[in-house]
Amino acid sequence: MGHRVAVVGCTGIAGQQLVASLQRHPWFELTGLAASERSAGKTYGEALRDPGTGALRWWLPEDPAPELLEQVVQDAADLDPQAFSCIFTAVESDVARELEPRYARTTPVISTASAFRMAPDVPILVPGVNMEHASLLRVQQARRGWRGFITPIPNCTVTGLVMTLKPVAEAFGLRRVVVTSLQGVSGAGRSPGVIALDIIDNVVPFIPREEEKVEAESKKILGRLDGDTVREAALRLSATCTRVPVLEGHTEAVFVETERGATPEAAARVFREFGRDFVGLGLPSAPGRLLVVVGDPFRPQPRLDRDNEGGMATTVGRIRTDGVFEGGLKYVLVTHNTKMGAGKGAVLVAEYLASRGFIG
Amino acid sequence: MGHRVAVVGCTGIAGQQLVASLQRHPWFELTGLAASERSAGKTYGEALRDPGTGALRWWLPEDPAPELLEQVVQDAADLDPQAFSCIFTAVESDVARELEPRYARTTPVISTASAFRMAPDVPILVPGVNMEHASLLRVQQARRGWRGFITPIPNCTVTGLVMTLKPVAEAFGLRRVVVTSLQGVSGAGRSPGVIALDIIDNVVPFIPREEEKVEAESKKILGRLDGDTVREAALRLSATCTRVPVLEGHTEAVFVETERGATPEAAARVFREFGRDFVGLGLPSAPGRLLVVVGDPFRPQPRLDRDNEGGMATTVGRIRTDGVFEGGLKYVLVTHNTKMGAGKGAVLVAEYLASRGFIG
Amino acid sequence: MGHRVAVVGCTGIAGQQLVASLQRHPWFELTGLAASERSAGKTYGEALRDPGTGALRWWLPEDPAPELLEQVVQDAADLDPQAFSCIFTAVESDVARELEPRYARTTPVISTASAFRMAPDVPILVPGVNMEHASLLRVQQARRGWRGFITPIPNCTVTGLVMTLKPVAEAFGLRRVVVTSLQGVSGAGRSPGVIALDIIDNVVPFIPREEEKVEAESKKILGRLDGDTVREAALRLSATCTRVPVLEGHTEAVFVETERGATPEAAARVFREFGRDFVGLGLPSAPGRLLVVVGDPFRPQPRLDRDNEGGMATTVGRIRTDGVFEGGLKYVLVTHNTKMGAGKGAVLVAEYLASRGFIG
Amino acid sequence: MGHRVAVVGCTGIAGQQLVASLQRHPWFELTGLAASERSAGKTYGEALRDPGTGALRWWLPEDPAPELLEQVVQDAADLDPQAFSCIFTAVESDVARELEPRYARTTPVISTASAFRMAPDVPILVPGVNMEHASLLRVQQARRGWRGFITPIPNCTVTGLVMTLKPVAEAFGLRRVVVTSLQGVSGAGRSPGVIALDIIDNVVPFIPREEEKVEAESKKILGRLDGDTVREAALRLSATCTRVPVLEGHTEAVFVETERGATPEAAARVFREFGRDFVGLGLPSAPGRLLVVVGDPFRPQPRLDRDNEGGMATTVGRIRTDGVFEGGLKYVLVTHNTKMGAGKGAVLVAEYLASRGFIG
Repeated sequence: MGHRVAVVGCTGIAGQQLVASLQRHPWFELTGLAASERSAGKTYGEALRDPGTGALRWWLPEDPAPELLEQVVQDAADLDPQAFSCIFTAVESDVARELEPRYARTTPVISTASAFRMAPDVPILVPGVNMEHASLLRVQQARRGWRGFITPIPNCTVTGLVMTLKPVAEAFGLRRVVVTSLQGVSGAGRSPGVIALDIIDNVVPFIPREEEKVEAESKKILGRLDGDTVREAALRLSATCTRVPVLEGHTEAVFVETERGATPEAAARVFREFGRDFVGLGLPSAPGRLLVVVGDPFRPQPRLDRDNEGGMATTVGRIRTDGVFEGGLKYVLVTHNTKMGAGKGAVLVAEYLASRGFIG
Repeated sequence: MGHRVAVVGCTGIAGQQLVASLQRHPWFELTGLAASERSAGKTYGEALRDPGTGALRWWLPEDPAPELLEQVVQDAADLDPQAFSCIFTAVESDVARELEPRYARTTPVISTASAFRMAPDVPILVPGVNMEHASLLRVQQARRGWRGFITPIPNCTVTGLVMTLKPVAEAFGLRRVVVTSLQGVSGAGRSPGVIALDIIDNVVPFIPREEEKVEAESKKILGRLDGDTVREAALRLSATCTRVPVLEGHTEAVFVETERGATPEAAARVFREFGRDFVGLGLPSAPGRLLVVVGDPFRPQPRLDRDNEGGMATTVGRIRTDGVFEGGLKYVLVTHNTKMGAGKGAVLVAEYLASRGFIG
Repeated sequence: MGHRVAVVGCTGIAGQQLVASLQRHPWFELTGLAASERSAGKTYGEALRDPGTGALRWWLPEDPAPELLEQVVQDAADLDPQAFSCIFTAVESDVARELEPRYARTTPVISTASAFRMAPDVPILVPGVNMEHASLLRVQQARRGWRGFITPIPNCTVTGLVMTLKPVAEAFGLRRVVVTSLQGVSGAGRSPGVIALDIIDNVVPFIPREEEKVEAESKKILGRLDGDTVREAALRLSATCTRVPVLEGHTEAVFVETERGATPEAAARVFREFGRDFVGLGLPSAPGRLLVVVGDPFRPQPRLDRDNEGGMATTVGRIRTDGVFEGGLKYVLVTHNTKMGAGKGAVLVAEYLASRGFIG
Repeated sequence: MGHRVAVVGCTGIAGQQLVASLQRHPWFELTGLAASERSAGKTYGEALRDPGTGALRWWLPEDPAPELLEQVVQDAADLDPQAFSCIFTAVESDVARELEPRYARTTPVISTASAFRMAPDVPILVPGVNMEHASLLRVQQARRGWRGFITPIPNCTVTGLVMTLKPVAEAFGLRRVVVTSLQGVSGAGRSPGVIALDIIDNVVPFIPREEEKVEAESKKILGRLDGDTVREAALRLSATCTRVPVLEGHTEAVFVETERGATPEAAARVFREFGRDFVGLGLPSAPGRLLVVVGDPFRPQPRLDRDNEGGMATTVGRIRTDGVFEGGLKYVLVTHNTKMGAGKGAVLVAEYLASRGFIG
């Protein structure tokens, strides 16, 4: 195929995750690297290099492809979107608010920013969960007069949550959800991210604006497409989001009230069966399973389970009856916030959209 | 006053916490140290000494009193309970099950073990929460023909939880509680406790038998004394207990449904007012406040707040309206599992019982 | 007494440590708070407040005095040095290079910055180690035509090191020193300091410019005052400085070659005797001992020993014969980098200088 | 080929590492699993299963082969050594002292225990470093009348150290070595290993008997084979061994005195060239390089570099001139203590011995 794609915000850690997910991709050719004015005009290697020590500020275990390090970084403000079939963005929300609509006039934009997530004509696509919401992109194009579109991925705490709530909703009906997240520090990035002084031997029980996102985005993603809009799911959801001394991987303790009641065994079964259709599409970045169910009561653990299926599966365990809710269930999930929850998840969404003709 | 007291299980970390809380106590004189056969006959200093390196296996920041290190440790199996006004025990449940009834024939036993917590004639006393349950001790004595009694402190995750639930129950009525705990590693002790290999960069989402204890003990403690028994509180409570890489201090994310509705402001007010009567008793180990309410949204944090009021206060923050429950509230608490939740909390209970004539 | 003093750079963590060490000080009255233009004109409380959440960005366990929070922060660039008997600075080196000479024309400056440490007429004073170097301040004043002076405290890794090397040098002669430091993250401050993503489950074996400072400053501090200069000590010193996942406290593994040989017992003796004269001065911030010697082979440990003597003592242990050097010794030390190694250490130096007539 | 081999001590973590390195091995067939009496007679899966929760106590990321879980564990005391071409042992030293000589009468034993490391007719083989010492095995067989032999791998801190010292010794001559290790917690195993309460936010500067092993084993490994014995290398070596909050990987700060002087560039060159012959043998478990040299001054880091070459390479960086020693060098290395330093390293030694006719 060979869709030409660009990564905007390529020097930050979120941008690097996109780059790592796109280099050597079978469908996408990473021909555009863009960042702020400060990096523009340098090669990617120069832009990543620490001026003091000469060390490469590349934060991922997999190395960047040598040819990418030679590629010249463009100024995101000047980027010509028409040179690409798709643009991936990893910039702050205020920057996204400005750049993304400009790109979208001509080109599909897959965004990791929250800027447009709650706009009525913008779907937040989560692999296997709500692919039918993609048709909202046509509404968006028509309404805004764009040839491209903007489609953001959700907050990284939402991804794993809705992957488990969706099959529960379908099988048993979903009324109420209480969730406490124990989030790894990589979710905060590196600028400056979480300071070691704040988190070693500690828990920080507040992540600004996170709980609101978890609540609003989850309801939208689980909502029903109704004509040219998505009706928010009629469920109550309450979150407490905390930061814990874990590098990667978000752990979530979930309590749900179902409409029709659910035994732990039945829930485990629907979790295991979830996402087969999506996986069956054979998209290049898709895992073998979207949900991995573990029986060991000490699992899932972020260090041991975040990399299941290459970080693209959410792992669920400790599935139990809950005594607070009617037909209640409780369980624990672990999801990889910087794989499925970020760059590689965005690439998987793009693959889906390419396979359905939205890109290219 | 000078009540002579003993600590059984004095070499373990829980026993050391009792020893540290009792040495130089204004009311209690620590004249008895007892442990298993292996330590019996040695001085306390010898019993604590590592045979290989000669280092003192004493795990607390405050040093043991020199005269205690010279005291000879007795065999717990042979201890004469009549030599003491009160015996504090810090032994495993199976050992407690055997030793405590023997001691209790003549002597009050304050226990950190779970062995007898759920017996109908055994109160689980939590300072400021349910002191009226102490009258159950007379029932226990009458029923069992004992001059002493057994009264255990609760599981360390329960202590902070019920301290916040009690004022909510009184002020607003309490229907349902969902709690996720993020527990420090000291709660598991040292034999072997939590292995570093298991918890660095990790969360372990299961602590065997912990959730059952949290659910059952909380309902009992919040229950109403009815004649010669305690009626379990009519509330639904569901817990998920996790272990996090934190040394000391349990953090708990709590969601509650109230009967009459509660604004965050009203809840903060009842938290602030809670426990004034108890604190007013002026017991030696009592904190100035049982609950500390913090307004900084990033608090409470275990490292920063566990030592509030010398580790004897529970700190509450992030008090918000909850969207899942009718009249819902959510908040986060931090409680010191090895101070108020263990040795020093047990000593405070003993002080209360001494002040009320149950001891001495 | 009541010397009026100021803290420049009062909003950062190093400045806060100075503030905490000076509030309620028996000799010094903290009447000046200064910072960059951004904070100038605000009260200290406003300057510390996070605009988003309203939380106070105060990083120390001891609270700031309420009256300080009401004090107006001045612009460091406009500060009138003549209003103070002494100015404490906690600013970046480039800022120090500009501000400190201006203040020093009229007023003594105690600096935590490295800007002037290696100037020939500037002593780096370490309590109990080289107080005789203070006379260099008169040389500095004469040479520069200043009524004040600049005297910096050393790099925080140096403080504990020279406190142990000094008695070894005096008792046994010192030829060579090899040291590997395992430094806590607080040494890097908070702007941005050490990122959790970089240090959890990790060691970072490089701290830019740290090893050079350790080598040069140690030799200067251990040097001999010779007329109007300090002759660098004739010793060889080589350092490897690493960062470890420890909040506070620097651990240093030291290997030394002595001239006259030293048994571990003799070394322990000279460590124990070190600093008695200095401690005997009875300065308000001085510890009861400058060095604490521990016999337990598992000590010193940063978490257990950093707070010995209120963080103002260096703890030494594992004193052994070294097989590599003639007359060799090896030992491990722990020193509190943000107490004796920072704000409170600077205040102690100021107390010494005040007691000797250099300040006031 | 298909040598039948056994793992003794197969349930512990060191034994599991052997099992993981041997399952699906191209040359060795793992037909024997042995452990203490407690596990004997159970299948491996049953022996690993936690009786309380049913969870598999298997500690490695790579799963055990299903057919191994069905294999019956034998009692190590009754194991028939003649059924195997080679026996790998992962037992405590006191057990090794008894079992290994019995097995060695007929069968080669590759041991991870320290019991026989310092015996004069026992070589401690380190891949690429001293393979010529293998001829000592013939001396051992002759002297003891054994058809098999015992050959232990070294302490895990030694492996990486001698891999870097060997090329320095060969190229520049080696006189003195000072090393401080910062060791990961996995080196202590799990029974009970390092307790989280002891190491979070901490450094423990003592590992019993570790420094003596590092000093003695390194000198033996670097020694010269002289007839029927190994002459210990004529060098002075002094170690301080510490434990840090790192899961896996030992970091070592090394300072060396050379005979002929060495620039950092020359040292980097000899490190890069080291081990080509050994690697050229094409043994199944051998890495592509024994030493990886990194230029980034912030490297090597245990979390980022321990898995280089599948954990079978030692990574060296920060190569600098040292100011304490004549012709001095200093550098930092990271080595994987539970890959090359344990099970997989033992298997690599066995592969070498098989390729040379010592096994089979």
